[in-house]
Amino acid sequence: MFRRHCIKLMSNFNFKPSLQTSSFQPSVWLEFSPLSIQYKAVNLGQGFPDFEPPKFVTDALIESVEKGGLNQYARSAGHLRLVNAISKMYSPLFKREIDPLTEIVTTVGASEGIFATIQSVVSPGDEVILIEPYFDIYTGAILMAGGIPKYVTLRENRQKGQGRSSADWKLDMNELQQAFTEKTKLLLLNNPHNPVGKVYSKQELEEIANIVRKHPSAMVISDEVYEWLVFDQNKHERFATLPDMYERTITIGSAGKTFSITGWKIGWCIGPKPILKAIANTHQYIPFSTPNPAQEAVAISIEKAQSIGYFEEFKSSYQKKRDKLVNTLTQAGFDPVVPQGAYFVLGDTSKIQLNGEDGKNTSITGMGKHLRDWNMCRWLTTEIGVAAIPPSAFYSEDHQHQSANYARFCFCKKDEVLDKAHENLLKIKSHPNSQNNN
Amino acid sequence: MFRRHCIKLMSNFNFKPSLQTSSFQPSVWLEFSPLSIQYKAVNLGQGFPDFEPPKFVTDALIESVEKGGLNQYARSAGHLRLVNAISKMYSPLFKREIDPLTEIVTTVGASEGIFATIQSVVSPGDEVILIEPYFDIYTGAILMAGGIPKYVTLRENRQKGQGRSSADWKLDMNELQQAFTEKTKLLLLNNPHNPVGKVYSKQELEEIANIVRKHPSAMVISDEVYEWLVFDQNKHERFATLPDMYERTITIGSAGKTFSITGWKIGWCIGPKPILKAIANTHQYIPFSTPNPAQEAVAISIEKAQSIGYFEEFKSSYQKKRDKLVNTLTQAGFDPVVPQGAYFVLGDTSKIQLNGEDGKNTSITGMGKHLRDWNMCRWLTTEIGVAAIPPSAFYSEDHQHQSANYARFCFCKKDEVLDKAHENLLKIKSHPNSQNNN
Ligand SMILES: Cc1ncc(COP(=O)(O)O)c(C=O)c1O
Ligand SMILES: Cc1ncc(COP(=O)(O)O)c(C=O)c1O
Repeated sequence: MFRRHCIKLMSNFNFKPSLQTSSFQPSVWLEFSPLSIQYKAVNLGQGFPDFEPPKFVTDALIESVEKGGLNQYARSAGHLRLVNAISKMYSPLFKREIDPLTEIVTTVGASEGIFATIQSVVSPGDEVILIEPYFDIYTGAILMAGGIPKYVTLRENRQKGQGRSSADWKLDMNELQQAFTEKTKLLLLNNPHNPVGKVYSKQELEEIANIVRKHPSAMVISDEVYEWLVFDQNKHERFATLPDMYERTITIGSAGKTFSITGWKIGWCIGPKPILKAIANTHQYIPFSTPNPAQEAVAISIEKAQSIGYFEEFKSSYQKKRDKLVNTLTQAGFDPVVPQGAYFVLGDTSKIQLNGEDGKNTSITGMGKHLRDWNMCRWLTTEIGVAAIPPSAFYSEDHQHQSANYARFCFCKKDEVLDKAHENLLKIKSHPNSQNNN
Repeated sequence: MFRRHCIKLMSNFNFKPSLQTSSFQPSVWLEFSPLSIQYKAVNLGQGFPDFEPPKFVTDALIESVEKGGLNQYARSAGHLRLVNAISKMYSPLFKREIDPLTEIVTTVGASEGIFATIQSVVSPGDEVILIEPYFDIYTGAILMAGGIPKYVTLRENRQKGQGRSSADWKLDMNELQQAFTEKTKLLLLNNPHNPVGKVYSKQELEEIANIVRKHPSAMVISDEVYEWLVFDQNKHERFATLPDMYERTITIGSAGKTFSITGWKIGWCIGPKPILKAIANTHQYIPFSTPNPAQEAVAISIEKAQSIGYFEEFKSSYQKKRDKLVNTLTQAGFDPVVPQGAYFVLGDTSKIQLNGEDGKNTSITGMGKHLRDWNMCRWLTTEIGVAAIPPSAFYSEDHQHQSANYARFCFCKKDEVLDKAHENLLKIKSHPNSQNNN
């Protein structure tokens, strides 16, 4: 005991994290996932399905493990069967032959694909344009590359006399143009959009391309992980298919989102040979390669998906879930932003009043007590029994107040879970904090 | 056709990779794996088993997929069952309670663990000490963090009258001491060592710790992925168990190496709470989380391994393979460095002469034509029918000549593959290039 104490006192070691990671904090999920469990809330927080993947997908993984020969390192840039399947699926969609060996790299989820791409193209001091709200992992990857994030904001302009829609969220093209400087190396585009649900129109993408085109060293990451979830009459347009854009666009996909297997962590980057070669080199030094049996299983799943009409069924089942959640939120007085794509709905919480310690005293991590949307989401979790996510987690610090009156709800959940959420959310109408009760 | 051509000419885009990744090249594996296939050589090159994992391990993965509930995102810092299993296995080995929730992070193989650790502790301009030869992915990770690699070299000092052994490879402690400056942030230690097979003695580790102790901000990564492969009377000593060292050491492990599942990419970092907290934060922004079904399967495997005597059996089967390959190399005139641990043997190629274009004209990638060990390994692959790896891939550019007369052979291969290698390698004795023929 005494000796140990001595050693402790003598020790001169003092840990400081690296400069580039010193601002990193536990993310929003570390507050809301445990809070939701603690209060037995219906969890519409984190964006993953609470149901099992399709059986043909899990069967493919079991088959891949059982048949053997796939339990050792995969080819670093991607298992051959998977890059071939990706090439075959996307070539018609991109309206060009995508070379499986030089224009595709498979990654540990879209996340590592985004990370490896940013490391490969952004040097210290380079500027990267983010469109707020943006998926929260983008900034971490930019800071680790020494990049400087610049923010442009999607703003809601409601059309009078029409229902609220994610299409009302618009980019001010002048603002975007002004954000570009000669130091701009990268624009991060997310389409369909998390958390707004926006699906960019072809015209919007063309306007963006016109700005990009003026900057000889600017590239674009088009994060299209929700590519198959585009509802109603909306159409998913791929930024890389616009004139001149393929050569400077890296398109990101995710088997996790596409086949409801977020836990397998398989994603990919598609783009022109010189950039993909750099990404393949970088990827060697991060995980070296992507899990092999799961790559085979995803290859098998992609090969099957089109022939069994999987993508249509996937989309229509999600469209039903979207309608269900939109209906609940409307009835409960949240005046939802009806999403054109992805699997999130922004609800409007302005009719709910928080008093005193509401939503503050239940915090587990102490994060976000100064932000209305954090307190609101905590209050919804603990008081109403439905966990949602504060969208300010998806804004830069200076702009976090912009999402004060929104909460993000996921609909990638079982129907009975959405029904239970309906039941709980409707209780809000008789709650004293609600200005909505009738 | 014409229009396309015009667009091509008009395009002003010009790709340059980021500064920190601009020196990255395809790695040594991209030369020797295809070359070995092309020449139908026996592949003793890349370090992964060519046999299937134990059945209890693959069964565990199948079970994890089948039972459901594990196909979505894992807890970012590590699936609970796995961090608990790791804590239970290592606490007695580290002679302290390792807290599963704050002192362990599971990663996408040891590779991503090393990458995330380096990003978390090394700031631009910090110095990192590497001991040559070193596992080739270390430098990539250091450069991406903006760190500056400093090299110290293990040197072979043969003991007269004794068999050649990896224990003859020694660190000059004065050289190590002099490599430390006030900018030194990290020392990368690999024990048991790839490619030498060295197992550091307790005294050597204590001498290293004495140097580290003098530097208040210096940390150590102890890469112990071959921890279970320590042969003969040698003992694996853990750097983190030396006095004062736990608080500044991150120990790296790999399920890939431990259970012959390199393709599943599951690894872990173990260390003190403040550093592991930083690593957990960083890991959020790289893959976000580690594949979930494989984490469950590795947890089940660890839980079972000790009770069924797996580790003893694993070690003794590899010791037999080592003896087999050492015997082959001795008979074929390669005067091998008998490894104390890991699954590689350095063979001495000084008795073989290369003439003219030998080993140059068969290169696929054009890499390493100015280096004897690259040409020798190509020649062995194409002419003798056994693929080995040139150890200069594990040295800094200035020191690559030091491994001119070595080739690295793996013995993590089926017995019949080692037998076939024996057959091919013995042919060398009657080859005109060999000065060994008798
Ligand atoms: C926009 C966006 N990009 C990327 C990802 C991460 O995808 P993956 O799970 O394949 O890493 C997500 C997950 O929520 C996302 O919403
Ligand atoms: C010394 C060393 N560290 C780390 C690794 C990578 O381990 P993993 O496959 O778990 O990423 C290897 C693989 O060869 C290795 O030799």
